[in-house]
Amino acid sequence: METVDTTERLRQLRGLMKQQKVDIYIVPSEEAHSSEYIAPTDARRAFISGFTGSAGTAVITQEKAALATDGRYFNQASKQLDSNWELLKQGLQDVPTWQEWTVDQAAPGDDTPGSTVGVDPTTITAPEGRKLSEKIKKKGGKELVAVSDNMVDWVWGKQKPARPNEPAKVLGLEYAGKKYQEKVEELRKELDKKKAAGFVVSMLDEIAWLFNLRGSDIPYNPVFFSYALVTPTTLTLYIDESKLKEEAKAHLEGVTIRPYHDIFSDIAALVKEQPTSNGTKDAASKPKRKYLIATKASWALSQALGGEENVDEVRSLIGDAKAVKNSTELEGMRQCHIRDGAALIEYFAWLEDQLITQKTTLDEVQGADKLESIRSKHDHFVGLSFDTISSTGANAAVIHYSPERGNCSTIDPKQIYLCDSGAQYLDGTTDTTRTLHFGEPTEMERESYTLVLKGHIALDLAIFPKGTSGFALDTLARQHLWAHGLEYRHGTGHGVGSYLNVHEGPIGIGTRIQYSEVPLSVGNVISNEPGYYEDGKFGIRIENIVMVKEVETKYKFGEKPYLGFEHVTMVPMCRKLIDVGMLTGVEREWLNAYHREVLEKTKRFYEEDERSRGWVERECAAY
Amino acid sequence: METVDTTERLRQLRGLMKQQKVDIYIVPSEEAHSSEYIAPTDARRAFISGFTGSAGTAVITQEKAALATDGRYFNQASKQLDSNWELLKQGLQDVPTWQEWTVDQAAPGDDTPGSTVGVDPTTITAPEGRKLSEKIKKKGGKELVAVSDNMVDWVWGKQKPARPNEPAKVLGLEYAGKKYQEKVEELRKELDKKKAAGFVVSMLDEIAWLFNLRGSDIPYNPVFFSYALVTPTTLTLYIDESKLKEEAKAHLEGVTIRPYHDIFSDIAALVKEQPTSNGTKDAASKPKRKYLIATKASWALSQALGGEENVDEVRSLIGDAKAVKNSTELEGMRQCHIRDGAALIEYFAWLEDQLITQKTTLDEVQGADKLESIRSKHDHFVGLSFDTISSTGANAAVIHYSPERGNCSTIDPKQIYLCDSGAQYLDGTTDTTRTLHFGEPTEMERESYTLVLKGHIALDLAIFPKGTSGFALDTLARQHLWAHGLEYRHGTGHGVGSYLNVHEGPIGIGTRIQYSEVPLSVGNVISNEPGYYEDGKFGIRIENIVMVKEVETKYKFGEKPYLGFEHVTMVPMCRKLIDVGMLTGVEREWLNAYHREVLEKTKRFYEEDERSRGWVERECAAY
Repeated sequence: METVDTTERLRQLRGLMKQQKVDIYIVPSEEAHSSEYIAPTDARRAFISGFTGSAGTAVITQEKAALATDGRYFNQASKQLDSNWELLKQGLQDVPTWQEWTVDQAAPGDDTPGSTVGVDPTTITAPEGRKLSEKIKKKGGKELVAVSDNMVDWVWGKQKPARPNEPAKVLGLEYAGKKYQEKVEELRKELDKKKAAGFVVSMLDEIAWLFNLRGSDIPYNPVFFSYALVTPTTLTLYIDESKLKEEAKAHLEGVTIRPYHDIFSDIAALVKEQPTSNGTKDAASKPKRKYLIATKASWALSQALGGEENVDEVRSLIGDAKAVKNSTELEGMRQCHIRDGAALIEYFAWLEDQLITQKTTLDEVQGADKLESIRSKHDHFVGLSFDTISSTGANAAVIHYSPERGNCSTIDPKQIYLCDSGAQYLDGTTDTTRTLHFGEPTEMERESYTLVLKGHIALDLAIFPKGTSGFALDTLARQHLWAHGLEYRHGTGHGVGSYLNVHEGPIGIGTRIQYSEVPLSVGNVISNEPGYYEDGKFGIRIENIVMVKEVETKYKFGEKPYLGFEHVTMVPMCRKLIDVGMLTGVEREWLNAYHREVLEKTKRFYEEDERSRGWVERECAAY
Repeated sequence: METVDTTERLRQLRGLMKQQKVDIYIVPSEEAHSSEYIAPTDARRAFISGFTGSAGTAVITQEKAALATDGRYFNQASKQLDSNWELLKQGLQDVPTWQEWTVDQAAPGDDTPGSTVGVDPTTITAPEGRKLSEKIKKKGGKELVAVSDNMVDWVWGKQKPARPNEPAKVLGLEYAGKKYQEKVEELRKELDKKKAAGFVVSMLDEIAWLFNLRGSDIPYNPVFFSYALVTPTTLTLYIDESKLKEEAKAHLEGVTIRPYHDIFSDIAALVKEQPTSNGTKDAASKPKRKYLIATKASWALSQALGGEENVDEVRSLIGDAKAVKNSTELEGMRQCHIRDGAALIEYFAWLEDQLITQKTTLDEVQGADKLESIRSKHDHFVGLSFDTISSTGANAAVIHYSPERGNCSTIDPKQIYLCDSGAQYLDGTTDTTRTLHFGEPTEMERESYTLVLKGHIALDLAIFPKGTSGFALDTLARQHLWAHGLEYRHGTGHGVGSYLNVHEGPIGIGTRIQYSEVPLSVGNVISNEPGYYEDGKFGIRIENIVMVKEVETKYKFGEKPYLGFEHVTMVPMCRKLIDVGMLTGVEREWLNAYHREVLEKTKRFYEEDERSRGWVERECAAY
């Protein structure tokens, strides 16, 4: 983790700010599509501040520069920021949020006139832009202005990496399960129900899903830079045409292709042309049809559409549809998780052999590399779905730990080893965490592992009426830890894409209030990953991917179907870490059945591989 | 259930509406304090429509009259409404809400000019009034006007019951546990934190709690008609002075007493006088201090204060404080529930003897009367806390069933008997449901009773970190029913007052989203009442009152304390209805411990009463 000298960068930026009459400039970490992972060309906040963590916002005035980030990154930011920067530790008491800090700078009070605050409107969402704008004005600042040309890009100049221009490739119907034309028709039905003029699609995974295309512009996420516009009568993909090879062009026959950046001028022109909704005499009193954008769409899109008057910000229609996988996608999820499970089993068997039998010294990245090389041999493998968390001992307690190549810990066979990893396959996306011990775990490690496992099983076995949200189920995963005074500070489950982003909305299992608004539906794919972490000592997490299905129940009250989960992850739990005496009969039965299923489904992969077979049979032996 | 001929009432009302230039008149069921139970003088909607259910709104135009109510009351409303009325079944598809119906009437479209809608602004909350007003205007209606003189009252004339004028009596410190002066000081600290000009108190139970006074103006709720205004420097109680006898006047020394109705003119005058918040030169740019009202306060109060500009609608500060009982109140809850439990035990023993041994024929109201007479012998008894639900067989499946005197069912000893009842004692409020069987229950009755019991126990045993809401815990009570495809369509728990309303906010356990906003806190008192209902057959509910307390856990992760419940209800579960084979070891242990506690705490009440002792010892025998 290096510290960058940002003095010259800031000097140039402040010069530009003066030219553009911007007193305060905000540099968020987000890019134009609110992507969770970003391409290097969009890492503007990292460039200007030197801080490379995934979350944080920089705010620069002529005199000051502040970087706000959350608890995960306090250490890293302290190390990486040079003396030009003030660190705003978000979430600590009496530390202003970056918005409050900005407003304070913009409205110093007394007789000082208020300041103009600038931001690239593609890097902030419409609701965020609106809210900040109101606060600035209310407190006596001048205004928030949208500065279209990103000033950090100007400073970055020729050093700035080019925008990736990888091809967007067709995902065959054998993987996608539904023609994109059908998806578009279904979307149009939703537009019709909502009496909307059209939907501007801004999230990259939604565009990839809608058109059955996959790209590689962003690490780990098989997406490509683009926008789309769907109206009742038109279908336009905004993309650099050079990304579309012949097959993709043929696939997209009938779709209007327009340059990536033209989305803004095109939609601006559209709303100006829009006629009143019908020709009757009272047309004027009827509201005209609005365009829909997702709540995470950029302020720039909202402004191009003419602002609130012409726009409805909604939970993305595509996000909801994408979260309900079709039967082809569900079967793909099952199959890729069996292959992925076999890869993990082979890796864990190899790792135990290396550490215990061969007494090899291995560091965390060497482990992760070996796992990737095993995975890559499997059918339909495309790449990893996120940076592998390969962590030993106390590192496992760092929830978002990522080992640094050449500068990470040696895997200690006497400590817990936590491995959270996943891959992209043509038929699905995987994400699995297993916590192992190769030596003698402590009593507390076994106890907390078993409590986490009990929560994992409770959620896996949950049966609930249609309409129940992941918010309501979260407690099931935590109850056993809570009873012992233990807790984990992260969600229990996130949606998972089909050969798409490993984290996807809108569903989730956890205490975030938005999860209460989205009931789980048949076809949802979601993780089940309770954990427990003891700072400086060890970390435990057990993560399977599960799919929501309708279940048979002994009785059936009312008209609502009852739902439950089907687990697709096929990797044994850690025998050494289970205190079987803490399990109820039902839990022991679950564990035995799960292990029989793992053996049965993965055995064909190690018929010739004695080491893996021996390991998995030992781990899966019945209790 | 009689049908009233409303023709003449409607004719007179429509005449008045013409005089007042109101085209459409809304008559909600609410009175000026959003009370759950209302005094007969406030039953305006029942008078004008003939429909006597607890929930419903009447809307009257010159040509039409509509009554909207929910599923609980479809039958009753159909029977009670005469042919002047159209029934709007709320919640059914394609049936407009009363607001939609009103807006449709107010804005018929085409060239017809929009209508003026009138409502008594004391009978509608400020947010409701605002929302409806916007909708009317948006759709082309004229406007919503606040008609201060209630037009139904004019029609009702001399037949209208007088507003009750029962005395407000002092509740001694030995029951209240905290002087009202201290409560006021604590409230002022909250006002100061919120930089508020004052709090207008409108909920009757909040005023009773704040001043340590109790009344009897409303059935079952020991409250009195009043308003209060608390500012940093003043304390005013708006009440008919004749309600205050000498003791109360002495108790309220230093409190300004003003006539009940003067609240409106007083606060209107106050906001006009209010100076800017300080004398500095930039005072104009600083927002002036606003008055707080609860979100359930009336539109009339909001208007008197000058509307949104001067008012912040908040979750009531007193509601939050009142929900956290002090140690005197908690001890009162324990004690009154022991006496109340002894009363229920005596009643159930008597009932079994009557039905089985004496073969007496008893109807549901006769049962309820006997229970009331037993309760009334106990110390500190004041009255019932709600209408006793004494229900046999299929009647038990009607969640809000109330047996009608002289027209109810005979208690069938071969059917399930569900009894949901409670009382007001000087030291607390009780609410208990027990489901019994005096003969041979069916397999399904035993199975569903045991599933309800398992849910009840799971919630009773729950341990959770501070910050957890009743929304998050609700699933624990439902999980076992869900696993069998069963469900109940009501909440799992409601807050309970201390010798106050049996239902009180803001806490609750259930799927209402507002419960997710209020974490349970040490000192909260709440019911635990899962159930299961089979239409036309039987109903099951098991309800204890529990208090939130801090608990010891084996470990303690983080700084947050862990919380759990202490049950105060002391009545055995029904032995005949428990399928003990369905219980886990932990559940059986809970049941045995609970029964030991019931026996131990109540035995002094039936040392001389063999029937009760025999019954309770049999029911409480260890498994």
